[in-house]
Amino acid sequence: MQSVSFARRAAHLSTTMPAAAPSRNISFDSGHASPAVLPDLTGEAESALDHYRSETLQYAPRAGLPALRTWIAEYMRADGADISADSILVTNGAKHAIELVCRVLIDEGDSVVVTRPTYFSAIPIIKSFGARFIEVTQDENGLDVAELGSLLERMTQEHTPLPKFIYNVPDFHNPTGVTMPLERRRALVDLAVKYQVFLVEDTPYRKVRFEGESVPSLKSLDRDDVVFQLGTFSKLMAPGLRVGWAAGPPALLARMAALKTDAGSCPLTQRLIIEFCTAGKLAEHTERVQATYRSNRDHMVAAMQRDLPEISMQVPNGGYYLWLTLPQTMDGDALTSAANDEGVTIIAGSKFFARTDVPQPKNHVRVAFSHATHDEIDTGIRRLAVAYAKLREKSRMEAGVLAGASN
Amino acid sequence: MQSVSFARRAAHLSTTMPAAAPSRNISFDSGHASPAVLPDLTGEAESALDHYRSETLQYAPRAGLPALRTWIAEYMRADGADISADSILVTNGAKHAIELVCRVLIDEGDSVVVTRPTYFSAIPIIKSFGARFIEVTQDENGLDVAELGSLLERMTQEHTPLPKFIYNVPDFHNPTGVTMPLERRRALVDLAVKYQVFLVEDTPYRKVRFEGESVPSLKSLDRDDVVFQLGTFSKLMAPGLRVGWAAGPPALLARMAALKTDAGSCPLTQRLIIEFCTAGKLAEHTERVQATYRSNRDHMVAAMQRDLPEISMQVPNGGYYLWLTLPQTMDGDALTSAANDEGVTIIAGSKFFARTDVPQPKNHVRVAFSHATHDEIDTGIRRLAVAYAKLREKSRMEAGVLAGASN
Repeated sequence: MQSVSFARRAAHLSTTMPAAAPSRNISFDSGHASPAVLPDLTGEAESALDHYRSETLQYAPRAGLPALRTWIAEYMRADGADISADSILVTNGAKHAIELVCRVLIDEGDSVVVTRPTYFSAIPIIKSFGARFIEVTQDENGLDVAELGSLLERMTQEHTPLPKFIYNVPDFHNPTGVTMPLERRRALVDLAVKYQVFLVEDTPYRKVRFEGESVPSLKSLDRDDVVFQLGTFSKLMAPGLRVGWAAGPPALLARMAALKTDAGSCPLTQRLIIEFCTAGKLAEHTERVQATYRSNRDHMVAAMQRDLPEISMQVPNGGYYLWLTLPQTMDGDALTSAANDEGVTIIAGSKFFARTDVPQPKNHVRVAFSHATHDEIDTGIRRLAVAYAKLREKSRMEAGVLAGASN
Repeated sequence: MQSVSFARRAAHLSTTMPAAAPSRNISFDSGHASPAVLPDLTGEAESALDHYRSETLQYAPRAGLPALRTWIAEYMRADGADISADSILVTNGAKHAIELVCRVLIDEGDSVVVTRPTYFSAIPIIKSFGARFIEVTQDENGLDVAELGSLLERMTQEHTPLPKFIYNVPDFHNPTGVTMPLERRRALVDLAVKYQVFLVEDTPYRKVRFEGESVPSLKSLDRDDVVFQLGTFSKLMAPGLRVGWAAGPPALLARMAALKTDAGSCPLTQRLIIEFCTAGKLAEHTERVQATYRSNRDHMVAAMQRDLPEISMQVPNGGYYLWLTLPQTMDGDALTSAANDEGVTIIAGSKFFARTDVPQPKNHVRVAFSHATHDEIDTGIRRLAVAYAKLREKSRMEAGVLAGASN
């Protein structure tokens, strides 16, 4: 008998080609950038395609252009991590880095720790390698490290194979917006070292901070090379560039590089980024991104408080999203569907829970404030409020019918 | 016990990060483009990053930009294939398409048919999914379809699970340069239909033809959707763009799209290609590419005949490579190493044989004429001739020592 493997795991996947046409709805669903902060890269492109033509139009080294790896290492050193270019692998975005980490670490049947809830795009990637999810509670300070510690201790005592890695988004968590304080981070890295379990620190929103001080990254607290830090240029420069990276143990990065079937990430987009960043434009642009999304967050929070005071949230200090907590009786899937009918797309909270075999909270939705204009935010939240009111009315009527029926 | 899976299969991979620094040797090894035919894309880039900024700097649809899928479908229709945009999935180069085909078709322990020899970069990709290789002879007309037919018939009678797909490069095969004639192609497609085995037709060099008439593609002969045709812009426009495609059954392409962890291939490079191609520049550029590589081939063939008449070859009508057949007593690995010492890099023929558990021909090397200038070709072939002469002298001396020792 054949072992269960890739093709079978892929068999459940969508058999409909993803839609190509953009929706006319106001989009609060995706993590697209605000059009207002998409940089002008025409000068960089001219230089890349003229002066660097033989670099940008030939195959690039699999690990990435040396100049970009060097720049990323410096960027991370400025952020407190003790990293050299040898510890950087350039990827086609951070999700590609998650895939490559899975390919070198996961054997079928292994377990992976994620927060409850977790980043929804990481779920199918990890799942596609046949891993089981272990969910750990997330509270207002992020991953519950005490719970994780008890879990790892119990697994050790019971001789259960330990998880292959712990996946987490410690800064402006997607979807909840929560940032882990320093003490929890230290405790998390200590646990990883103690039990020799890798930490995968996904940091797309780390610099998209609106207020308060940056907290040291897990990688900067790592003296034992147990942390893979995943980064991306998607959230600061532009998603369309498709350039991210993994910083981690060089021996494992080399295996990941050997598995890159892109024959090296695109050198043209790498060179655009090098030109932009080495000219010092990223720092200034980051401030513009922060100001734009801070203003969008404030506008959306105000709109929510005005039009949907029944819905609660923890206002995040950065990132792209609001994680909304609905009244216990309201279903996030139903609200998402009703919102779509009213002309605003959001994402149901159910998509952010990795395990489908246990009961999960149903009363959440995620709304992105990154992409929309202030006017669109006002209109979109009004539409969401209409959907909410209709759904509440519908459930009241159903309750009334039931009550009537029982008389 | 855990089933053997990804991480274990990845464990044998290189633990050294691939070198980033370019070699000072003359390079006949890689399939790089001639710098002389790298197009000027600065105008396309300005348009892409200015006029199309919101498209090129945001996430793109996973299946690819609709305009590119449409253009590729038209390009393939002009080449005789009955294809619509729905049957096109844009990938990060053709190797990425091989990976995605493997992910949806291969379960661990499945078999895949390849020619003996076959494209060396396809081998580790297919192997990384746990497939076994079945090698079929390749003669001067390509894959031996009669041998394949007997094999499939025998497997059917013995109730052995059939191969998941047949991988082939029917036009200017890599490494041999062989092109399959029409009758063999028809017979191959008929076999695939009869036994319901997918054909993966890899076509990077299809348009890099120097003389003679194009032979219909396998896809153009396919009425039953058994063929995945893989294409790329690497060999006609530029490798650095990292854009290729798979044309095949839409339901399987949709699963492949769902497995793309790049969140959609880079829209910037896709738009550059759309602008270049829809302006009608590709046809003209293709002629330039053909003329340049025809001239390079002629120059290298002449240099070989002048400096290395002992080495035989079948002169190809297209593509990037010469496949050299050394005298039976000479080892291709040893020549590759000796050539490297003399300052010219080539690829040992042994790398192009998928099975390592059976005896394989040792007396081949592949040399690329695509990248070098005429002067570099002259110098490189002279260096190869020096390496060849030294190696022959060394083996004669060893034979003499042995002969002396036996006296």
